[in-house]
Order: sequence, then structure tokens, then C-alpha cells
Amino acid sequence: MDTTDLAQGVAAGDRRALARAITLVESGRPDHRQAARALLEQLAGLGRQSLRIGLSGTPGVGKSTFIETFGQMLTGQGLRVAVLAVDPSSTRSGGSILGDKTRMERLSRDPRAFIRPSPSQTELGGVARRTREAVALCEAAGFDIVLIETVGVGQSETLVAEMCDLFVLLLAPAGGDELQGVKRGIMEIADIILVNKADGELKAAAQRTCADYAGALRLLRKRPQDPEGYPLAMTVSALDALGLQEAWRRMQALADWRRDHGFWAARRSEQARHWFEEEVRQGLLQRLTADPVQRARMARIGASVAEGRTTPGAAAARVLALLDN
Amino acid sequence: MDTTDLAQGVAAGDRRALARAITLVESGRPDHRQAARALLEQLAGLGRQSLRIGLSGTPGVGKSTFIETFGQMLTGQGLRVAVLAVDPSSTRSGGSILGDKTRMERLSRDPRAFIRPSPSQTELGGVARRTREAVALCEAAGFDIVLIETVGVGQSETLVAEMCDLFVLLLAPAGGDELQGVKRGIMEIADIILVNKADGELKAAAQRTCADYAGALRLLRKRPQDPEGYPLAMTVSALDALGLQEAWRRMQALADWRRDHGFWAARRSEQARHWFEEEVRQGLLQRLTADPVQRARMARIGASVAEGRTTPGAAAARVLALLDN
Repeated sequence: MDTTDLAQGVAAGDRRALARAITLVESGRPDHRQAARALLEQLAGLGRQSLRIGLSGTPGVGKSTFIETFGQMLTGQGLRVAVLAVDPSSTRSGGSILGDKTRMERLSRDPRAFIRPSPSQTELGGVARRTREAVALCEAAGFDIVLIETVGVGQSETLVAEMCDLFVLLLAPAGGDELQGVKRGIMEIADIILVNKADGELKAAAQRTCADYAGALRLLRKRPQDPEGYPLAMTVSALDALGLQEAWRRMQALADWRRDHGFWAARRSEQARHWFEEEVRQGLLQRLTADPVQRARMARIGASVAEGRTTPGAAAARVLALLDN
Repeated sequence: MDTTDLAQGVAAGDRRALARAITLVESGRPDHRQAARALLEQLAGLGRQSLRIGLSGTPGVGKSTFIETFGQMLTGQGLRVAVLAVDPSSTRSGGSILGDKTRMERLSRDPRAFIRPSPSQTELGGVARRTREAVALCEAAGFDIVLIETVGVGQSETLVAEMCDLFVLLLAPAGGDELQGVKRGIMEIADIILVNKADGELKAAAQRTCADYAGALRLLRKRPQDPEGYPLAMTVSALDALGLQEAWRRMQALADWRRDHGFWAARRSEQARHWFEEEVRQGLLQRLTADPVQRARMARIGASVAEGRTTPGAAAARVLALLDN
């Protein structure tokens, strides 16, 4: 498969070429994988970088409305915005594209925007690679901002954090005693917490929730990659488009500071190295489990470890010895 | 090397045999590794389980005093207590044993206690395996409680969380504006937060700090493995031995609840499976980097990924292709 045409199309910002390229990186077929690698290598040479923003929020916090309004605000400033969804639990197929485009109806028709739903693939490792490569394609296509949206199932935030420059957590106001509770593991990857729905009846509750989380953030140790005042919590209303300019200003300020102080580049290279090592590990494991007999044996040994019938060390030694036969 | 005698010594609770067995699992020599695996397999048959408690706290929170006092309280109730330290940053050697025993002077002389410092090994993966195997040896030796102490450098808490039944975070009172800040990643693995030094002048500050963290814990989503009221924050004074009985009661209540509701066994088998897979991955990587030429090549490719000169996918494919040559 010759990927030169496709690479040129993506580099020229052609949306259909970009869509086709993403379909290519989503494929697990060995010849497609090889073509995808060649394509990504060609495009890496362009050296284009977007601002990669991870966005997490549970269903009901108004994530679609936020992306729709925030995305349009950005495109209104002449910026090009790509939206990628990460949903490892998803078994959605063709229909989901319609679903994703329906929930962000106006943004999806915006010529400066590109929306791509999560592929119908359940394995987290696969979703990670596909998303990371789709992000690289959007960067090569010249998007200024890549929004990587996650629904917060399982490990998906950690995965998204490994591929973005900054991470935004969207929350809904908590009413009285009813606390929504942030999934553990998110508080510490969040750079900016936005409490949404700070409008109408919920305004006061949103402000209280914001104060609670601001307080909780102050209990965490300062990270070197944060300037004074970050991570921060603030209220927004996606519905009334309130606070979004300010939120964007804060995101830019953080990104600029990190860029000026070397953290941006350091993080990017750390991420690249991480993904490289991850791919090597995956590839090695795949070699071990490519043969169905070997795979069944490995599963059986894993089960006997879980049941306590053998120790992890002895079981691993047995599995590794299989390689020599 | 015949490990039968050693296994019998450990199983009989002989402290010198236990110390020798831990030295064996700490060794990286292939023949020692093989003997260690055989030893662990023999001892696993005993099916003994301790309560494994992870304990984290930065220098200055009074961790040694806490372990000294808390440990003696436990041995005073007739319980046998082993203390293992995890310090991946440590380059301490012989002298450290003295150091660790000096800082817990009375506990180290207690016949019902066993204290083992962190080995002088810097690689995190190695420390993880060594500690996990040392824990298994202490269980086989019949200790009721294994305290796994970590200084909280890098990823060491996550590592300890992967091998314990419950995790305790020790904090010092924060005075006024001066917030100590909890390292990110710890809040969500903590089952019980103990604010130490709730004595004398610091008592009020300890109570305020405790209230702050209790508030922050309420903002986190409830986990299925937590009964009502957990995770919790409470004050203690290791110096005056205040609140330690209550803290121990809370730990036991949590452990009992998890045992009764199947979470204890489920967590143990998940941990065993995790360590098995980790050992397989480590073993595979080791095969790849056993040859110095190969290792140098892998490091070179990793560096070119970090510098953005190649993509993670293409680089990984190149490394994996080396295996076929």
C-alpha cells in the first residue's frame, strides 16, 4: 500500500484523507499496521504540534454541550479544532458516528472542526495506540487544538493523560449532601477543574462545589510543571457560554508557561519514550500469545496464579521457558 | 542449592532462616533466582496469610516513632509483626541495617518483631519483586502483620499498594498557611489517613488538618471495596501513644469487612495475577536487552523516539525485528 498520496492529503489538511488515515491506524491487519507506521513516519517529518487537551467528565456533566460551545468559540477565533473520543467500553459501530455528530451538531458542521468518535474496539491497549496515532494525524493535518475526550471508564484517563499537554476535568455542581465524587486517580492528573452548569438554579451549588475542589487541590503537593495558581478550579456554564473565554485563557497561560519553562518539550519526549516502550512490551507479549496453544497455556497458568496454586515468579519462569521450546 | 532446610526454618518462624531467605530473594544471580523460586513455591503450600499493611509518609511525619509505638502495641497484644522498608532511591548498604534498627530501637529488640531495611538496589522493578517476595516469606514465617513502609519516592506507593491489603497514609499537622501537600497518587490509594503529632502545641493544627483531609476524601467517589465511613481520616499521637488502639481497631474492621465481602480474596488474586504478568513482561524485556549490543541499540532507538526523530510505532517495530536476527 502506497501511503504517499494519503500523507500528502493529510498534510494538506484534507478532512477525507484524515478520516481515511485514522481508519487505517485503527486497523489491526498486519499490512495495515505496516502502512500506518510508514504514514506516521512520513508525517512526523512535518514537525507540527497542536495543543493537546484531555477532557474528562462523567455522563451528565454536560460534556457534549461543553465541547459544542467551547469548540465553536475556538473555531470562531479562527482556530482549527479536532475532537477525538476515547471510550474503551464502547462497542458502538457505525451508528455511533451519527450519535457523536448529533450530540455536537453545530460543531460537526463547522469547516474548522473535525470530530471522530471512538472506534468499536474494546481492548484498552488497542484504543490507546489508535488514539495516540489519531492525535498524531490530526497534528499533521494542522489542527491547532486536539481535544481528547474520555468518559472516565477504567483506566482511560490515565491513558489520555499520557498523550495530552494539559488535562481538564469537567464536573457538575453537587447539591447539598449529594456528592458526585471524583473517581480516584483523576484529581491528580487534572490541571484545570471546570465546574459546569454555573447558571440558573445551580449557580450557587456550582460555586460551592468549585470552592470544595479548590480546597482539595490545595491539599496536593505542588508539581514542578505547575506555575503559581495551578492546578485551579473555576465555574463555567456551557449552556450560557459563560466563563469559557476565561477557561481558554487559563489553558493557554498554562500551556505557554510550560512551553517557556521546558516542561512541554520534556513531557512530550517522556510520552514518546513511554509509548515506544509500551509498544515493545505489547509486541513481545503478542509474540508469546500469537499461537493459540501457547495463549491457552498462558491463560491457564495465569489462573492458577490467581487461585494461589503457584507463585507469580515460578509461573512466569514456566511461561518464559515455553519460548525456548 | 537445596532450599528444603531453609524452607523448614522459615516455616518454623526461625528469624535467622527468614533473614537468610530474604537475602536469597534479594539476589539477582540466576542460580539464586532459581533457588528463590523453589523456596517460595515450597512455602506457598503452607497457605499462611498475614495482614499486609502499606504505610507511607514523608520524612518528618514521625514514621519511625509511629512504627516503634504501634508495633510495640501490637506485639504487646501477642501479635507478631514484621516491618519491611521500601526505598527505591536508597543506596544504603550495611550501615542502613543499623540505621533502621536504631530508629526503631525497642521494636527491633522485641522477639515478636522482625525489621528488615530496604536493600541497596536502585531499580524499581527489582525492589518491587524483592519486597513482594520478602512479604511472602514473612507470611510463611507466621507473622500476623506485615508492615510495608515506604518513604514515598517516585512510584513506590503504587508499588506497595499492589502488594498490601490496606494502605495507611501518615501525615503531619499543617500549620496555618503552610500546607505540606500530599503527593498526587496517594490520596486515592489511602484507606486510612492518620494525622500524627496530635499532641501538645500541634494538637489543634492536627485536628484542622484531619478535618481538611476528611473533607477531601468525601469528594472522592465511593469504591466498592470500602464499607460505610471509609476511607477515613483520624488524628493520632505516636509520641504519647494516643489513638493507636482506635487506629488499629479501624484497620481491623476494614480488613474484616473486606474479608467477609470477598474483596480481600479478590484483591489478593488480582495482585497475584498482576505480578505474574509483570514478571513475564520483565523477563521478555530482559531477553531483549540481555545482549549488550542489543541493549545499546534499544537505548539509541529510545533516545531517537524521545527526540522526535522517529515515531514510537516505527521504533518499536524496528526493535522487535531485531529479535528475528
